Parts: sequence; structure tokens; C-alpha cells
Amino acid sequence: MTNWKQIDTYAKKWIEEAGEKLRCSFEKKLNIETKTNPNDLVTNMDRETEQFFLDKITETFPGHRVLGEEGMGDAVSDLKGIVWIIDPIDGTMNFIHQQRNFAISIGILEDGIGKIGLVYDVVHDELYHAFKGQGAYMNDKEIPKLKEVAVKEAILSLNATWVTENKKLDPSILAPLVRDVRGTRSYGSAALELAFVAAGRLDAYITPRLSPWDFAGGAILIEEAGGEVSDLYGNPLDYIKGGSLFVSKPGLHKEIRENYLKNL
Amino acid sequence: MTNWKQIDTYAKKWIEEAGEKLRCSFEKKLNIETKTNPNDLVTNMDRETEQFFLDKITETFPGHRVLGEEGMGDAVSDLKGIVWIIDPIDGTMNFIHQQRNFAISIGILEDGIGKIGLVYDVVHDELYHAFKGQGAYMNDKEIPKLKEVAVKEAILSLNATWVTENKKLDPSILAPLVRDVRGTRSYGSAALELAFVAAGRLDAYITPRLSPWDFAGGAILIEEAGGEVSDLYGNPLDYIKGGSLFVSKPGLHKEIRENYLKNL
Repeated sequence: MTNWKQIDTYAKKWIEEAGEKLRCSFEKKLNIETKTNPNDLVTNMDRETEQFFLDKITETFPGHRVLGEEGMGDAVSDLKGIVWIIDPIDGTMNFIHQQRNFAISIGILEDGIGKIGLVYDVVHDELYHAFKGQGAYMNDKEIPKLKEVAVKEAILSLNATWVTENKKLDPSILAPLVRDVRGTRSYGSAALELAFVAAGRLDAYITPRLSPWDFAGGAILIEEAGGEVSDLYGNPLDYIKGGSLFVSKPGLHKEIRENYLKNL
Repeated sequence: MTNWKQIDTYAKKWIEEAGEKLRCSFEKKLNIETKTNPNDLVTNMDRETEQFFLDKITETFPGHRVLGEEGMGDAVSDLKGIVWIIDPIDGTMNFIHQQRNFAISIGILEDGIGKIGLVYDVVHDELYHAFKGQGAYMNDKEIPKLKEVAVKEAILSLNATWVTENKKLDPSILAPLVRDVRGTRSYGSAALELAFVAAGRLDAYITPRLSPWDFAGGAILIEEAGGEVSDLYGNPLDYIKGGSLFVSKPGLHKEIRENYLKNL
């Protein structure tokens, strides 16, 4: 039988070790490259961190598979068994420009069901963690269950890109929501934005395109905190292909889907 | 002769004391009211913090005047002599919803010239400070002089509101800039966003309407870090009436004014 307690203990230990390496890297010179476009950045530390997890997992749990942003793990095309979905640095642009506001994100799934969610805000040393059925925590503090909130009192995390001309979403869809909410924010790290929704600091987060490693850890956190998780159409997330994402406090999810996302 | 060293020492001491009171207030129940509109929030802690500064300044420097967000200080209609411009909690909405990402901001001017700029990120215990002619610091660390950056490599802080229908700015003005920059962010505290520009973590920050207490402390920081400070038209800031704000790294300021703000 799978020893989930052991997996949870190791995952937390490794994420903290990897975070320490990232903090130490600030003193050294980064090697920065671009990936799919000039703004899609990757550093040697993204790759080294993914390799670190891969080595640890392969050695300790040889039956588990790893789906990682930098593609060093397995070619995962189904979610059978235990799969670790890892973003070694979520918010690489912030990592480079700000040396803060980035996170390590890990979601661990069993036969496609999220069991463990971890998002580590490295610089502020805040580990958001959840184990299915046992609630969500920030460090040692349990996060209270999320309560309903109305659109007009909500803080929405949304990048300004999605209400200007872009290739993924008609900008007129979300503009009325930006007008009606209490305020909008954008932090540049999906994993952190998900953790902030889980912690009740943001009421909703919407984005038209993410990869599974961006949201796997955070989605599990939000579910355990009592929030709602789906794509923009209200469908479950696809942990292999990724897609759009809409997470929020309970109640707010229905209000936004019915009143703002109906024209998608 | 004015003892500026003494003023600087007291200002830093008081801002840290006020920050400690704000951190302690998280355990108590807040009294939240609205001001000019339902999203313009004020708490008992905004008022208590402003009163704290007012009491200290009046007692220690009876000749100085105080312009504060909550209006407890002087009715300031000119900038003669020494004027403290204070925002006791910049980012009150974040203070209430997030218990982080807010700041205390103080600018101290002599005959209209910024002499001391202080922005205190209370929760992260980071004091950004500058004294005219002596550079900008975060805690004990001197902030390196800001270097030029191009639009396509810049991170811009801009609220999504300003590229959707709003009462202050034609949304089509800044939309092309959002498209061309490397990324956009929005933190919900002007003082912090100014401090982040001073620290080089953001390359520019644009907003169409602020009050003097929102920008006084941060503007002085940016000038000392070698950045550029103006309103959206390139004019100097108005420390009595407030107005629009556009701050950035050197070079970038001219590029954005000439290529994006020319149609204002």
C-alpha cells in the first residue's frame, strides 16, 4: 500500500531544500535563455531545480512518474498511478527581475486525483500545503475555509493583457468584470496567485492559458480550502494538456460564470 | 539651521514604531468604513496611525506642517517651510483583504523640494529610504543606480482598470504599451509600486490619478535611485493637488512618452 505520509514528508523536505538553493543562487550570475518566445524565459536554476526533484523522486520512489516544466521527467500521456507535476520556478520573469514573487509548485496525483498540493513562496519562506481531505495550511497555520463573497466586494487577479488585444481571449469578455469588482491585481506567478486565492487574499484568479505544472499544486490547495476550481467554461482542469483556469471563493464562481463568462 | 539628520532619525524611528502597531492590529477586529465610494475604504488603523505621526511631529517639530491622507493634519495650500506628506496606510484594501502588500509612506519636503523619502513595507519589514543627494536604500543595503531598459524588456506596473472603460483615461492609450512590454503587474499600493521601481524590480509604473500622500515618499526614492518622475504629460508632480503619475527607469521614460503617451 502507498505510504502517503512518507511521500508528503519527502515532498516538503525537498521543496524546502530546493528553495534554499534558489535563495543562495541570488548571489551568483544567472544564465538566462528564451524558450518559445522572447518573453518566455528559462534559467539554469529552473533546469537545476527540476533535475534536483527528478533525482530525488527517481531514487526514493522509482515507480512514480514526473511531469515537469523543463521536460526532464517522463513523457506523461495519461495519469495512471502516481504522477508528480512540478514547476521548478513558477514566475521565472519575477525570479530574474525581482528575486521575489516566484514559487516552486508541486502537485502529486494518484490515478488523476490530486492528493498533495504544495506551493512554496521561496523568498518569504511561506509553504502553502494541502493533503486531500485534511484541509489547507500555510506553514503551521491552518487556512480557514473560504467563505462566499459578491463580485462587487471581490479582489480579482487578472493580467491586463487579457483585457487588451491578445491572441487567446476576446478582451471585451472580462472588461465588465474588471469594472464591477472592488479591485484587480496581478503578481506574475500563477502558483502564487492560486495560493493567495486558497489563503483568502485574492477572491478569484482568471487566466486563459496555463500548463499543468502552473496550476497542479495550487488547484489542490484551493479545493482543500473550500474554493472552486475549473477552466473558463466550468469544466474540470486537464492535468496533461493544461488550458484556461478560473478559481475563486465559493458562490463567486457561479456568479462570474453566469454573468460574465456566458458569452465565451 | 534645520537639523536634517535629526528629522531623518525621528522619521525612521516613528515609521518603524507605527509599522509595529499595524502588525499587532492583525489580531484585533478592524473597524472598516467607506469614504468617497464603496471601494474607498478606511479603517480605525489608518486614522490611529496618522494621529500617531501628527502627535509626534507636533511635539518634536512644532514648526513643521503635516499633509495626511485622513485630513487630521494641516490645511496645506502651499509648500513653504517643512511639510510632511503622509499616507498612514497606502493600500488599505490590501491591508484589509490580505494583511500584506501595504505600506506607510512619508515624504518630507523643504520649500517644495523633496528631502526625505520613506516607504515601509510593514509585513516584510523592508524600509525603503532616501535622503536627497545620498542615494536610495532598502534597509541597510544601498540600491544600485537604475540603468536604461527598452520597452520590450520592461515590466510595467499598471492596473487593468486603465485599459478598460473608466472615467479617467481613454483605454486605447495604454493598450499598445501593455502589448509591447515584457509583462505587466499590479500590486494595489502606489507607494510599494514606487518603491519597487526605485529598487529596480519594476521598470515603470503608470497611473492616471493619485493624491500627494500616495506618491510623495516614493517619488523621492526614485529620484535618488536615478529614475525619472513626472505626470503623464512629462510635467513635475503637484505635491498639493496630486494628479497622474509616470515613473520609470531612465531612457524608458522618453521612449514611452514619445511612442505611447503622445496621443494623450
